[in-house]
Amino acid sequence: MAMDISRRGLLLILSSPSGAGKTTISRAILEGDAGIELSVSVTTRPPRPGEVDGEDYHFIDEPAFRRMVAEGRLLEHALVFGNSYGTPREAVEKAVTAGRDVLFDVDWQGTQQLTENARGDVASIFVLPPSMAALEDRLRHRAQDADAEVAKRMSEAEAEMSHWPEYDYVIVNRDFDRSVQAVQTILAAERLRRERQVGLTDFIGAMRGG
Amino acid sequence: MAMDISRRGLLLILSSPSGAGKTTISRAILEGDAGIELSVSVTTRPPRPGEVDGEDYHFIDEPAFRRMVAEGRLLEHALVFGNSYGTPREAVEKAVTAGRDVLFDVDWQGTQQLTENARGDVASIFVLPPSMAALEDRLRHRAQDADAEVAKRMSEAEAEMSHWPEYDYVIVNRDFDRSVQAVQTILAAERLRRERQVGLTDFIGAMRGG
Repeated sequence: MAMDISRRGLLLILSSPSGAGKTTISRAILEGDAGIELSVSVTTRPPRPGEVDGEDYHFIDEPAFRRMVAEGRLLEHALVFGNSYGTPREAVEKAVTAGRDVLFDVDWQGTQQLTENARGDVASIFVLPPSMAALEDRLRHRAQDADAEVAKRMSEAEAEMSHWPEYDYVIVNRDFDRSVQAVQTILAAERLRRERQVGLTDFIGAMRGG
Repeated sequence: MAMDISRRGLLLILSSPSGAGKTTISRAILEGDAGIELSVSVTTRPPRPGEVDGEDYHFIDEPAFRRMVAEGRLLEHALVFGNSYGTPREAVEKAVTAGRDVLFDVDWQGTQQLTENARGDVASIFVLPPSMAALEDRLRHRAQDADAEVAKRMSEAEAEMSHWPEYDYVIVNRDFDRSVQAVQTILAAERLRRERQVGLTDFIGAMRGG
């Protein structure tokens, strides 16, 4: 009898400097694997046209946000251009308990908070660009920005990159397909970690009792 | 320029009760991946016909073995049916420093010693049989042993299995090909762990300096 061993999900974190390809990789991971999902954040910024409450974000006001922070109901939160964003703890815990994985596309500060608040459930990956020149190319290409803007983003990228030693895994994004495969490999291996196999004790108990 | 990041190898440990398929899986891993090798043990048992010194084992005498133990030159050692076996530290360190991985097919006692003596370099996998009945089938089939012998091996299997919580990963060997693939996945992911990418500091330094 092929008994199924129930598994605890995990929080898979992808970080990288902007322009290193993290968002494209995230999208490919979500599309290729029904077992992993994005968490829906809360935010105090107003909905943009077409955004659906509860799907794109949970749109809440500032006092409600502050209450969630005070009650420890956010796994991480940040202020971006005057708007607050956060990850509701309850939804993530529900997913993980049900054996579903949750993907996070956050910066080093979000990673530090998630690691602190969900320690044993986190696997974190830092995606590096193949070179600073390649990164600058992508930023120029994408933004059609003025030199000053590109220079500012390059310096932000350097600051973000200084945090790679805080991550479990590091991938150099030289080739998109290979990078997606590397993330999939890490996810598959992390699912086999002993501490995620929460049903193993029962499985072995049943085996040895039977 | 595709700069190569030098990598530190790892010690990949496979344990299982006898009959659960660990040795067949090990062989498939070694055949399918040029980057991983078996370590050559030292032993005090005499060579069998056809065994080559330095290939199958390093054959040494009991005083030489005791000296290696005393000098801390073995990563793990054990006494089996009156003969001593051990893993020379130097060869493993040489391999790992050169970015090659080393596979170990050892029991829980060997795993405890390896984990203690090479902590950050170890990834350990416990292979479980799909059921005790399946394990008993395999032992009977293989050994054509008397009932008493099979009963003894089953009780040894239970004792070995009680150590699964000491491992990093757990695989239930329901299907040989899938189990081999799971070990390959774990190996591939472990190679991407940040602490194995020993060349990353130089790589990032060169990137940011350039």
